[in-house]
Amino acid sequence: MTAGMPSDLVVDLPVRLDRTDSRPLPTQLCDAVRALLASDVLHPGDRLPSTRVLAAQLGIARGGAVQAYEQLQAEGYLVGERGSGTRINPALARLHSTVRPPAAVPPPSADDVLHLRPGAPDVDTLTTPAWRTAWREAATRVADARTDPLGSPELRREIAEHVRQMRGVVAEPDRVVVTAGAREGFALLLRALAVGATIVEKQPPRGSSGRTLTIGVESPGYPSLRRVPVALGHRIADLHADEHGLDPASTTPDLDLVLVTPSHQFPHGGTLAAGRRVELASRSREQGWLIVEDDHDSEIRHVGAPVPALTALEPERTVMLGTFSSVISPGIACGYLILPGELVAAVRDLRGVLGQPVGAVVQGALARYLASGELRRRTQRQRRVYRRRREIVLQMLGDVPGAQLRPLDGGLHAVLVTKRPEAELVARCRGRGVGVVPLGAYWGGESSENGIVFGFGAHDDASLMRALAVIAEVADTQS
Amino acid sequence: MTAGMPSDLVVDLPVRLDRTDSRPLPTQLCDAVRALLASDVLHPGDRLPSTRVLAAQLGIARGGAVQAYEQLQAEGYLVGERGSGTRINPALARLHSTVRPPAAVPPPSADDVLHLRPGAPDVDTLTTPAWRTAWREAATRVADARTDPLGSPELRREIAEHVRQMRGVVAEPDRVVVTAGAREGFALLLRALAVGATIVEKQPPRGSSGRTLTIGVESPGYPSLRRVPVALGHRIADLHADEHGLDPASTTPDLDLVLVTPSHQFPHGGTLAAGRRVELASRSREQGWLIVEDDHDSEIRHVGAPVPALTALEPERTVMLGTFSSVISPGIACGYLILPGELVAAVRDLRGVLGQPVGAVVQGALARYLASGELRRRTQRQRRVYRRRREIVLQMLGDVPGAQLRPLDGGLHAVLVTKRPEAELVARCRGRGVGVVPLGAYWGGESSENGIVFGFGAHDDASLMRALAVIAEVADTQS
Repeated sequence: MTAGMPSDLVVDLPVRLDRTDSRPLPTQLCDAVRALLASDVLHPGDRLPSTRVLAAQLGIARGGAVQAYEQLQAEGYLVGERGSGTRINPALARLHSTVRPPAAVPPPSADDVLHLRPGAPDVDTLTTPAWRTAWREAATRVADARTDPLGSPELRREIAEHVRQMRGVVAEPDRVVVTAGAREGFALLLRALAVGATIVEKQPPRGSSGRTLTIGVESPGYPSLRRVPVALGHRIADLHADEHGLDPASTTPDLDLVLVTPSHQFPHGGTLAAGRRVELASRSREQGWLIVEDDHDSEIRHVGAPVPALTALEPERTVMLGTFSSVISPGIACGYLILPGELVAAVRDLRGVLGQPVGAVVQGALARYLASGELRRRTQRQRRVYRRRREIVLQMLGDVPGAQLRPLDGGLHAVLVTKRPEAELVARCRGRGVGVVPLGAYWGGESSENGIVFGFGAHDDASLMRALAVIAEVADTQS
Repeated sequence: MTAGMPSDLVVDLPVRLDRTDSRPLPTQLCDAVRALLASDVLHPGDRLPSTRVLAAQLGIARGGAVQAYEQLQAEGYLVGERGSGTRINPALARLHSTVRPPAAVPPPSADDVLHLRPGAPDVDTLTTPAWRTAWREAATRVADARTDPLGSPELRREIAEHVRQMRGVVAEPDRVVVTAGAREGFALLLRALAVGATIVEKQPPRGSSGRTLTIGVESPGYPSLRRVPVALGHRIADLHADEHGLDPASTTPDLDLVLVTPSHQFPHGGTLAAGRRVELASRSREQGWLIVEDDHDSEIRHVGAPVPALTALEPERTVMLGTFSSVISPGIACGYLILPGELVAAVRDLRGVLGQPVGAVVQGALARYLASGELRRRTQRQRRVYRRRREIVLQMLGDVPGAQLRPLDGGLHAVLVTKRPEAELVARCRGRGVGVVPLGAYWGGESSENGIVFGFGAHDDASLMRALAVIAEVADTQS
């Protein structure tokens, strides 16, 4: 990509001359250029500054620079033609053994496996004219203005409208924080809470390093978000979860927050029951902890009405962790927090110090894309596509002997509990060109059920059917 | 922007019916819609799902949904026309007192002040065809593939080439980490070091919450980066800095890392002297701390040869904190770390848990833009522009009675030490339409020199001259 450097670019020569050195200045310059070549800073073909520019930079007479270049040309290190400047001799490439080829990074493992990644959305139809227009317009308006640390007013307004329309959550734009995704938003929230921005203060922060928080998590549960507090030095407390979601009876007063997936428990597949919602909210008040609602694929619901958000039920005690991963692509690296009003000031202060990680172009493009209505239109279309693919999964894996599908009410992954050992299933699928994940990989410390997890959203129907046929065959205990 | 919702989009109704409730299901549905209106979840003009879709979602007979819609239509809440579906009555807008206008966020303070923001680059000429092409191509290739947590191979290769050509630093792409800017990169590094990824281990990590690090910082110094460890609960140790940069004699063995700005000390304006570079590297080895090189505007050098990077001098003990803020725009929110090989694995693990905050489109666009050679071409052009503006500053403020300019060897800001009180200067400049920053705002706890800081990169020559004329006039003790 950069093998041949454009001829109008010169390399900066990081050379310093030492007037107390006994060597004459031109000699020092020659030595420096040879050393830069030997240490691979200069490459054959690189263009050097003119003697005029170099002499001015180094504060020496131009004659000294000319003398050094002539010496190096005589030695074959440099070549120079009238009008095209002086370059490192390209012929040195053949001699110079330490030159590495520029493409040192290996290509992504080029296998023929169709990876059924859990949660991966279909992005084949993403790049519509509205999408391209949004990016084109945003790319031409990179202001140097430092944006609001919580995100641009336009994008925060559009996100507020998005959660109102998609999730029935009424949030003023000033309670919306643009994040680089659910995990980044969670990490930001944890830091803000650790230094004292807590609605129900449990204990005073111990010095400036902040409090270690205790976070209740569903057990079993999806591992991605629960790893974040662990990596940041906080404690995890396992709370019981079953096919009706998190069991509120398992929460305790020593918790600081409870991370819950009300619309889609993993791996049980169920939705948080209505009674448990109410109980969770009331225990939050009684026991003094904050609810963190992981809302990551709630927009993709196959069965029944949309599940009301806890954030709508208890807005002053709930933080919504939202993301555009499922409805756009994980590659967008953008999401949002909806904060209780009391937490806004502390998060704003922290964000002001740490910086807003989502750039102005991304924010501008996303605001335009949301404003066009295209994301909602696309999500409505995609729901039909995903529902069809879910039907395919149910038809092809619904009655395989020795295998049981978990409920598939929403989301883009399926859990197949199997009698055959999961390691064997994963290996046999892989051998037949299909990538699936063992259920045990998600379970953390606990003893796991046996089975596999796979995504059904990303690939076209025909590819999906071929892959599912393989899964059905290897899971079947009667085959 | 979203005031009028496109007519093909329906609102999801977050309604749950309760079969144990004594009210009939259609009554429950009516009550729910009225409640959603009262609570501002539904807005006048919103389009509702068809009775067929809604009945299927709620698991009720279609007749029940029809009955509820008819009741709400009779009450004036809904209007429905054949073919265009059912909507919340737009006429309710006049009655519905709690409806907030969508543009609730105030516009950025609309004053006529020309803000001379320290460090702000000129972005007027950024959006060239190469820039737009890079974004256009990147926007059409959003893979859902989760990228390498350290950043895409293409971008990391281009960054390695960038630091080789611009800074004389030879770094294999696998030591390059894409960050959302210098502060985000610093925060990532601190967390990785706190949990034990240290080259010279000082003490074992205390439990999983990690060690509190001690970071030596230049005093005085630029405050932006030093606030990051404070916000993350680490300790700051002030190290002496003067017109020759950080004084290595002030470092101590209890430090974990030393943050240094070798190319551009703030506010003294000088460059780290050659002897001090060598001494800093040797004390790093003797005392067992890591050097963190803040390289934020080293590409913009007005006088003399490029300053060699400490990372080139001592690559296995130095982390380079790079950013594209100065050469592109702070709005790009992208930078990089160049890591010693020993730290790569720990940073990769941590990044894998916390997620890569820079999205696939940004990474793709930047890789293309760098590969085109356009950034280096632009930087070479901009250096000429900035040098000219620096000359203007020197000419207009170089001999104002009662004011003294600090050296302007590099960067995009100037420090003017003044006899007149800085608060008075800032207020008088502001009154004449020019925004500058008091020097005291940067100094932290210490007793400060008196003066002002201003940027000279962002505005065209004529605007700059007008602003400088104001500064010269208000600073002049003889006027």
